[in-house]
Amino acid sequence: MKAPTTPKRFRIKSPCSTANIGPGFDVLGISLSLYLVLDVEVMTAGKTFEMTYSGEGAKDVPLTPEQNLITKAALYVLSANGISNLPPFLKIHVHNPIPLGRGLGSSGAAVVSGVLLGNALGELKLSQERLLDYCLMIERHPDNVAAALVGGFVASYLSELSPEVLKGVPTSESLLESVPSPNLPQPPHGIGHYVRLGWAKEIKAVAIVPQFKLATAKARSVLPDQYSRHDVIFNFQRLAVLTTALGQSPPSPGLIFNAMQDKIHQPYRKTLIPGLPEILSTITPEKYDGLLGICLSGAGPTILALATKNFDEIAKAAQEVFKQHGVKESFYKVLDVVEDGSTCVYL
Amino acid sequence: MKAPTTPKRFRIKSPCSTANIGPGFDVLGISLSLYLVLDVEVMTAGKTFEMTYSGEGAKDVPLTPEQNLITKAALYVLSANGISNLPPFLKIHVHNPIPLGRGLGSSGAAVVSGVLLGNALGELKLSQERLLDYCLMIERHPDNVAAALVGGFVASYLSELSPEVLKGVPTSESLLESVPSPNLPQPPHGIGHYVRLGWAKEIKAVAIVPQFKLATAKARSVLPDQYSRHDVIFNFQRLAVLTTALGQSPPSPGLIFNAMQDKIHQPYRKTLIPGLPEILSTITPEKYDGLLGICLSGAGPTILALATKNFDEIAKAAQEVFKQHGVKESFYKVLDVVEDGSTCVYL
Repeated sequence: MKAPTTPKRFRIKSPCSTANIGPGFDVLGISLSLYLVLDVEVMTAGKTFEMTYSGEGAKDVPLTPEQNLITKAALYVLSANGISNLPPFLKIHVHNPIPLGRGLGSSGAAVVSGVLLGNALGELKLSQERLLDYCLMIERHPDNVAAALVGGFVASYLSELSPEVLKGVPTSESLLESVPSPNLPQPPHGIGHYVRLGWAKEIKAVAIVPQFKLATAKARSVLPDQYSRHDVIFNFQRLAVLTTALGQSPPSPGLIFNAMQDKIHQPYRKTLIPGLPEILSTITPEKYDGLLGICLSGAGPTILALATKNFDEIAKAAQEVFKQHGVKESFYKVLDVVEDGSTCVYL
Repeated sequence: MKAPTTPKRFRIKSPCSTANIGPGFDVLGISLSLYLVLDVEVMTAGKTFEMTYSGEGAKDVPLTPEQNLITKAALYVLSANGISNLPPFLKIHVHNPIPLGRGLGSSGAAVVSGVLLGNALGELKLSQERLLDYCLMIERHPDNVAAALVGGFVASYLSELSPEVLKGVPTSESLLESVPSPNLPQPPHGIGHYVRLGWAKEIKAVAIVPQFKLATAKARSVLPDQYSRHDVIFNFQRLAVLTTALGQSPPSPGLIFNAMQDKIHQPYRKTLIPGLPEILSTITPEKYDGLLGICLSGAGPTILALATKNFDEIAKAAQEVFKQHGVKESFYKVLDVVEDGSTCVYL
């Protein structure tokens, strides 16, 4: 890639997100008001590549183009469009307030911001649908990336692609391992589809974050391969109600609390998250006025409470249960559901 | 029960309904513009009990209070409210245009109209929520009865009731076998909950009805007890999208057709319904402009197509596939989604 004739500066913002929301395993995502921010300068001359990083994970996150998830995603997008490398004089500062490995979509935000970075650097002008295809090549679970990309409360599905279409598609791991690369395959069209669901503006998200990490792969490894018809229908019924119930104003705690119950992932993850069953069963709308529902955020360990008031009381109650189960350290954030998804603004 | 001092006349109407709608097994229901109608006269003197019947099933449906599903449901509601029998001088004419045993909610409409009949005869003034509890005591799958009772496009869930609450609750079979009876138990409160989903007014339902019956119990017996996580998530993703996609105007055929795919019940029912796989895979929006999606109606054998135009062409295409698979006789109806559910109007 050549250096541009005039310098360019832009800022990419990707929101954090919570997924699953009880019954909506691998389906539902909500983008929340905590943003991964990339400040990008494409210069005509100067240092060849400079990446700096502040915020969560500052000590651990690798900052070379071939190792950092954001630049790897950007390199894939560029490669698939015939551009084999980053521009020669590039400066990126990453500010990341999203806790890593806690179920708040930090890697989803990194993937989306990386795809937007590739799109901006290559001046590719990809559509929202196409950007989602690229995100889904890198992250095959649509819930977090769809929410982080388009914003709001989102349901998404992966298309069943034909074997011929899938033949040329590498795994997400091999894709990212092979960057930088001259010509990686473009994503098939329409890998995923999404729909924005209604959201009642008075509902806020309280994220209670315990001070330990839980890798999504580990949280996934405890899940069974098979589910009983009873448990499947239990989730179907709640999921279908929940997608509309969270858009009704005023929201109904009785309807929503029950509609946020789940039998597909949370019961199996209780061994990984001390106090989870107690948090889910004892923090109820009867005890906390304004509480609508409580669940794992993504694969955990963060707890997500949806509520219209008494945010601090609800969060402190969850922290107290964590403490009783040996998790001494935790913090919480009261977040808004954001209408906008990820943005790229030229400065 | 005593005869009233002045005669009463009223008409109860319950719509037919379609359920499942692809991925929403045991969850989604839509009430459609074909009504079971009860014309009821409660007299001060005269014949003790007279029940007449016209329409579908006229030859087969039993018309004694202890055997007819409508009157059995009414007798249960009365009994649970301390009334051990029907009023002494009662005349009921049933007109039923809903085909029986075809997946169009004929028994759901009978249960709902029977519960409304009990409510009216006993002057019980039960709330909508309470009427649903009574319906769910008789029919434990909420999809058809919730749609028939409240109208429109409905998602519903059954509550998980505590063992103490459930201890006194008889099975639906034993409940109906024991009527008339002096004091059957009232339903627990809040057995089921529902939410009305959005519906784009331009979408109509085409019901293609083959001339053979399929008992729901038989259609249920072919389903497996266990499902793979892959298949479960496949349905979750489509169900969550579908609940909102059918409310968007104009509706998107690309989004909806895929969101109506299912891996939980339809694949297992193909042996019971000749031509089903061909109908689901060859009648597509690419071939039929206006088609949004196609699926089994309830447990089948009726096929449900949702569309905005070309209703006759779509129906005839399905009939043609039925013919090629040996189902010579079928008919179709183009139905509207009705806003109102079941009603009881005094004449």
